[in-house]
Amino acid sequence: MSKQRATNTGGLDASFASDNVAGVSPEILAALGRDNDAAALPYGDDPLSAELTDWAKDEFGSQAEIYPVFNGTGANVVSLQAMLPRWGAAICAAGAHVNNDEGAAPERVGAVKLLPRAVTDGTLTPADIEAELGAVGFVHAAQPLAVTLTQSTEVGTLYSVEEITALAEAAHRHGIGVHIDGARLSNAAAALGTGLGELTAGAGVDVVSLGGTKNGALAAEAVVVINPQRVTGTAFIRKYSMQLASKQRFIAAQLLELFSTGLWRKNAAGANAQAAALGAGLSALEGVRLSAEPVVNAVFPEVPQEVAARIQSRYLVHTWDTAPSGNPVLRLMCSWQTTGEQVQALLDCARGR
Amino acid sequence: MSKQRATNTGGLDASFASDNVAGVSPEILAALGRDNDAAALPYGDDPLSAELTDWAKDEFGSQAEIYPVFNGTGANVVSLQAMLPRWGAAICAAGAHVNNDEGAAPERVGAVKLLPRAVTDGTLTPADIEAELGAVGFVHAAQPLAVTLTQSTEVGTLYSVEEITALAEAAHRHGIGVHIDGARLSNAAAALGTGLGELTAGAGVDVVSLGGTKNGALAAEAVVVINPQRVTGTAFIRKYSMQLASKQRFIAAQLLELFSTGLWRKNAAGANAQAAALGAGLSALEGVRLSAEPVVNAVFPEVPQEVAARIQSRYLVHTWDTAPSGNPVLRLMCSWQTTGEQVQALLDCARGR
Amino acid sequence: MSKQRATNTGGLDASFASDNVAGVSPEILAALGRDNDAAALPYGDDPLSAELTDWAKDEFGSQAEIYPVFNGTGANVVSLQAMLPRWGAAICAAGAHVNNDEGAAPERVGAVKLLPRAVTDGTLTPADIEAELGAVGFVHAAQPLAVTLTQSTEVGTLYSVEEITALAEAAHRHGIGVHIDGARLSNAAAALGTGLGELTAGAGVDVVSLGGTKNGALAAEAVVVINPQRVTGTAFIRKYSMQLASKQRFIAAQLLELFSTGLWRKNAAGANAQAAALGAGLSALEGVRLSAEPVVNAVFPEVPQEVAARIQSRYLVHTWDTAPSGNPVLRLMCSWQTTGEQVQALLDCARGR
Amino acid sequence: MSKQRATNTGGLDASFASDNVAGVSPEILAALGRDNDAAALPYGDDPLSAELTDWAKDEFGSQAEIYPVFNGTGANVVSLQAMLPRWGAAICAAGAHVNNDEGAAPERVGAVKLLPRAVTDGTLTPADIEAELGAVGFVHAAQPLAVTLTQSTEVGTLYSVEEITALAEAAHRHGIGVHIDGARLSNAAAALGTGLGELTAGAGVDVVSLGGTKNGALAAEAVVVINPQRVTGTAFIRKYSMQLASKQRFIAAQLLELFSTGLWRKNAAGANAQAAALGAGLSALEGVRLSAEPVVNAVFPEVPQEVAARIQSRYLVHTWDTAPSGNPVLRLMCSWQTTGEQVQALLDCARGR
Repeated sequence: MSKQRATNTGGLDASFASDNVAGVSPEILAALGRDNDAAALPYGDDPLSAELTDWAKDEFGSQAEIYPVFNGTGANVVSLQAMLPRWGAAICAAGAHVNNDEGAAPERVGAVKLLPRAVTDGTLTPADIEAELGAVGFVHAAQPLAVTLTQSTEVGTLYSVEEITALAEAAHRHGIGVHIDGARLSNAAAALGTGLGELTAGAGVDVVSLGGTKNGALAAEAVVVINPQRVTGTAFIRKYSMQLASKQRFIAAQLLELFSTGLWRKNAAGANAQAAALGAGLSALEGVRLSAEPVVNAVFPEVPQEVAARIQSRYLVHTWDTAPSGNPVLRLMCSWQTTGEQVQALLDCARGR
Repeated sequence: MSKQRATNTGGLDASFASDNVAGVSPEILAALGRDNDAAALPYGDDPLSAELTDWAKDEFGSQAEIYPVFNGTGANVVSLQAMLPRWGAAICAAGAHVNNDEGAAPERVGAVKLLPRAVTDGTLTPADIEAELGAVGFVHAAQPLAVTLTQSTEVGTLYSVEEITALAEAAHRHGIGVHIDGARLSNAAAALGTGLGELTAGAGVDVVSLGGTKNGALAAEAVVVINPQRVTGTAFIRKYSMQLASKQRFIAAQLLELFSTGLWRKNAAGANAQAAALGAGLSALEGVRLSAEPVVNAVFPEVPQEVAARIQSRYLVHTWDTAPSGNPVLRLMCSWQTTGEQVQALLDCARGR
Repeated sequence: MSKQRATNTGGLDASFASDNVAGVSPEILAALGRDNDAAALPYGDDPLSAELTDWAKDEFGSQAEIYPVFNGTGANVVSLQAMLPRWGAAICAAGAHVNNDEGAAPERVGAVKLLPRAVTDGTLTPADIEAELGAVGFVHAAQPLAVTLTQSTEVGTLYSVEEITALAEAAHRHGIGVHIDGARLSNAAAALGTGLGELTAGAGVDVVSLGGTKNGALAAEAVVVINPQRVTGTAFIRKYSMQLASKQRFIAAQLLELFSTGLWRKNAAGANAQAAALGAGLSALEGVRLSAEPVVNAVFPEVPQEVAARIQSRYLVHTWDTAPSGNPVLRLMCSWQTTGEQVQALLDCARGR
Repeated sequence: MSKQRATNTGGLDASFASDNVAGVSPEILAALGRDNDAAALPYGDDPLSAELTDWAKDEFGSQAEIYPVFNGTGANVVSLQAMLPRWGAAICAAGAHVNNDEGAAPERVGAVKLLPRAVTDGTLTPADIEAELGAVGFVHAAQPLAVTLTQSTEVGTLYSVEEITALAEAAHRHGIGVHIDGARLSNAAAALGTGLGELTAGAGVDVVSLGGTKNGALAAEAVVVINPQRVTGTAFIRKYSMQLASKQRFIAAQLLELFSTGLWRKNAAGANAQAAALGAGLSALEGVRLSAEPVVNAVFPEVPQEVAARIQSRYLVHTWDTAPSGNPVLRLMCSWQTTGEQVQALLDCARGR
């Protein structure tokens, strides 16, 4: 579970509390105002939504469909419902957002059973899929017919294209569809130097929850159906799942500005770079240890108690875990809006300056 | 069921197709950019959300709570779940949006049974409540524990404050909570010359789906709990119903700009006035008949076939019904963005000029 | 809604209160004890369940599948889920058991929206199907993909084979599957002089809730899938809907004894005959009026107040309605266990003897 | 997951495949025929259901309520819904029947999230409860408001009265209700030498799924609400969960015969004793190892391959696991119907005679 539960900042600086503390990219704010004077049909029958579909087909393949939604939970739960029959279940990492941080929306809204797998670094492997196959055809068990991966993961790790490809091959061999929770897919693609389609469609993924909000949008995500053979009724499901926007053109405008201009990569690479700088700066401090160098926009430093105390006296930063040493492990998130000055100020604070 | 199903405009002018063809009020667009540079906690722990709560308490009473959500279906389904136990049902007009136009979200997401009542002008009466009381305590029947009114209704009619008060008294006498689907509450209050709180809290209403989107917001509605004794778990329900925005401050910003500045009344009164002008202009035409003068922003003229043909050759306008005369009844909607010039142009078209 | 809500009989004779006040047919009780000493696999992998499947294929066609369940609500809700996708809806009569007397199980367990039609004599017509077609393909509306008929109906009426055939043709023309709630299918078939398969498979029905309990079983109903092309995942759905019996052999034993021996017709015809006698006797009384002669096992006499008072002082009998005359309409149900003496005693009571 | 998935016995003896391969206790069969001639109101308004309530109050305390249902999944899912609000979750052992063998009925029917805990011997401890408390009040997480224990467990182990008491104290300290899945509660109480109330109400349990079917009933379980303050709407929930029997008197008759006469203890003790004999006989064989002596009616011997092959050539017996030695671990279940001769025959077979 992510440990964001502060009810207010108590005067603390929230800049590193999460990547959703950030505002909206100026380019996206500007895009909202374009064509605002013209009447446009609601519920996706508008020119911007049509343009977004064109972009999706270019990026994810000619069969691709894109369904803008409001938030990441919505994208995940619409995706899983579209992929699964009433009796289906989705294999996931035990620590996945979908399992811990969505208020049981998959189960409650979608009647989707999750099959959580204990994993060490946030990533599933083909063995996790195979371990659930005993249930196939067994009428007493929810049927494992989808697997959902988070890319990048809740603990700041990544699947390589090869790893996703291997998972997708294992899944498809057993009739299991592959979903990616891509709330931070941009950060992953920026880190890996791939395109968004390359990292998903190119690796055999069937459906993606494409995240915009954490990477600079106001509120804009989408279900991207790469392989329509793996879904049914997505449009109906989105509607009754309360994720069809009346004025969808403004969701489409956000996604278009973010994804069709390269802004997604600029924003994500920026966040990743600040995390790298933050990680490098912290690990230079005495007693600080990173279990791994940051690859995306999250840093999980194990820090001495006094360092944690200094940071947390000025910043709203979550204690993620306790290391075997007894020292706290903090979670520091960078966003598209994080600046070098902010990183420097946090490092100064950590150093006691 | 609203008859909006055009998949594109086919070159037609969509201005009168619905009130959600409109863009975003400039004031609201501008508000989105304010404070954008500062980090703010997600999920409602931000200053604008706090300010919105202050406004709600001022407007709806000191016990009031406000839960911003993404869309009207979300507001309705969160409201009804919060008001009803697992075995509860909601009395509604058979023609209500919640019954016909939400893809069965109340049933599917909230396990809420709807008890539709055949009504003539879109409004329920205390007799509709009494007609369902036979089920109370009967274990075989879904329990009628809420009633939901649409204000203004799907057919452009209004409840007076006295009518709502009488309904609320009847409902409360039998332990039934009162919900208003207020997707167009602003239009109703503007027409009636009341405040929003006066029209709801003042009439005994327990929970309101407060609409912003149709009246100039981008995507912003809210569940307003006027009487917390009638709900449980609203915050949890909003979350698993996938209606909790990550960057909620931007939903709050829209609602604040709309409701705390008087913009809501200006926009709604404008739409209502254009509908009045449109109605007056149409009823002056030979063969055109209005079953009632428009009181809010919808006009339902019965028009001769040739007039309908003229209008529909240039405008995307829905045929709502067939009158006993055999002539079509059209539905024309005005929005905050509708101008006198647009009304005039439509009237000219109807006249064959 | 059936008006059975007495919490106890208060010393009254309950014999005519419902057809489920009856006990278990002796033949069925005896059947429960057969083969009781042998171990048999649970959950339907037993010889009696296999034998039941053979019977079903004989009766309903070689493609038929039979899924024993515990009760009628279970049969209906499993059937409708198997017939409908997540976004589907079922057209029904407004007065149907599934709509009023199942505690909203279709909506709550199956996320199935019901589309109730106001009908006069409990039966739907092809026009009822056509009236719902406007929603087809409209993403805002639950999709009408099944129609459910009750045979015999809650008000003691019947569909003829021709009427069912016409409904099925209309439904199938629009891609809509046909379900029969056959809690009293035996009474209908006995009245019409048809076989069970003839009345369903022979008329184009896709899925039947086959009732045993009201006709002499202890607790035994079944989902009969006549046309497997119209369902998916029935076995999985029955399991998670909590209708798969551990010791299914004892449900199968009841159904086999009832249906493979002709007992069903004997029991149902007996109940129907007692209702006919009761109706004839009552209509001979001064001031008593039957809106229709009983065709199955229910009698709905309009009786003078003093007659109602006499009957209800000795019998637990439900007042169903108030006739235009102001007189009460009673509901009297006969069961397989009703005897001629019981009918005579009630008539004597009605006559004031 | 229990590994019962044979689709037929293939000529094998199924006697040790499960405890639900058994028939119905003759005493219970006989009880079904009593009072069969009298009309009795349906849905629990009958004398036997009233008598059952009296028994429950005697056994579980004067506040106790009892709701007969059809099967164990029904009992669990009704219980958990009654104990949990819409946003609630239930802590359980990862290997629990409710998590693996109920087709996701808790999630799908009840919208109940399960929080599975990895445990070693099938039993939870207070530490498992404490480990989930981090989610309390956190809107993003399903709220842990119930814990469900299986007594006896799926792996043939037991909670002592003291262990249940400690769990209940820990749970109640945090506002968490305590449920027991007692499909085999009789076997547990017989093994521990306690009464049923003593083992549940006496240890602080709030709600019990009381099992009858595995211990000699045809199909009869019950939700026993010991502490009504911990539930709401149980009667309504049972109804819409499709677990309210029309002719409930016959479910009540089974439960009364089983529980009010001492038959439950005789049957359960008999099954336990045969398992003990079977365990003793097996562990005397060379190469056979029991991880623990059987305490209830399940035996999990680790046996050499050739012994497994001999047994499985004549018996339908499930391979439960593979021991570290590489040898198979079988699961052998005894029932109330298991005889000493059957045990001896299996031992002879195992010995190669």
